Amino acid sequence: MPKVDIAALPVNTGSGYLPPYRDAVAGRSWRAVAAAGGLTQFGANLVTLAPGGWSSQRHWHTAEDEMVVMLSGVAVLVEDGGETLLHAGDIATFKAGEPNGHHLQNRSPAPAVFVAIGTDFPAADQCHYPDIDMFWSESTGFTAKP
Amino acid sequence: MPKVDIAALPVNTGSGYLPPYRDAVAGRSWRAVAAAGGLTQFGANLVTLAPGGWSSQRHWHTAEDEMVVMLSGVAVLVEDGGETLLHAGDIATFKAGEPNGHHLQNRSPAPAVFVAIGTDFPAADQCHYPDIDMFWSESTGFTAKP
Repeated sequence: MPKVDIAALPVNTGSGYLPPYRDAVAGRSWRAVAAAGGLTQFGANLVTLAPGGWSSQRHWHTAEDEMVVMLSGVAVLVEDGGETLLHAGDIATFKAGEPNGHHLQNRSPAPAVFVAIGTDFPAADQCHYPDIDMFWSESTGFTAKP
Repeated sequence: MPKVDIAALPVNTGSGYLPPYRDAVAGRSWRAVAAAGGLTQFGANLVTLAPGGWSSQRHWHTAEDEMVVMLSGVAVLVEDGGETLLHAGDIATFKAGEPNGHHLQNRSPAPAVFVAIGTDFPAADQCHYPDIDMFWSESTGFTAKP
């Protein structure tokens, strides 16, 4: 059955971020919708941000394209160029290697729901966090900046 | 600016299908949202089906994962297992190599809007159309079944 039975999927929470950086994403939960259908060429998570929740720390990937499709609620996209509201139907793209840290914040009193799509090339990727003393690569995991 | 300026993107229409198979997709239009952001690792089109329009002929890809995120309106997902309605927020996945022909039909009186995400591996891919005498590969283009 190609239609994803969203309600049947496990709801994931948590973060591998170093403390205290994980606190900001405590209001984030997600269902792995692409993996549920057996897809391997890209990932897609259906993400809900509770009021106050962040999608991640502001970050950019060296090797992985990312895209967000907003489904409901309102999120604030924060990136080097400033802040932009995302409403249902809005789409944002984050090209691999562009050093423009980005994330979504839910500053509203209602949940914000979006689909985050991205490739998964952990052996090639590094993740940079411009605002905090954190870095990720497959060989180091989450660590202080090298 | 990571947010895609959807209204500024060209609206594409048309089809390379053989006649008369292209008639069914005459009500389909799309904007290339991932390419607009410079993404290369997967494609994403924001597709509108006018009433009566089909997303494609029923097909499956040998080498390319696909996913649909429904944004507004109602579409009928047709696949080997039958017909399923897709409403806003619904997601469907189509794993590369699964020989389950699929497409969306808009049988409603209002537009149906979705995002179609997929990889693009034309050198490896073949596209099979179980209902009609048509086939696609990069070396043959659209042709009668070999």
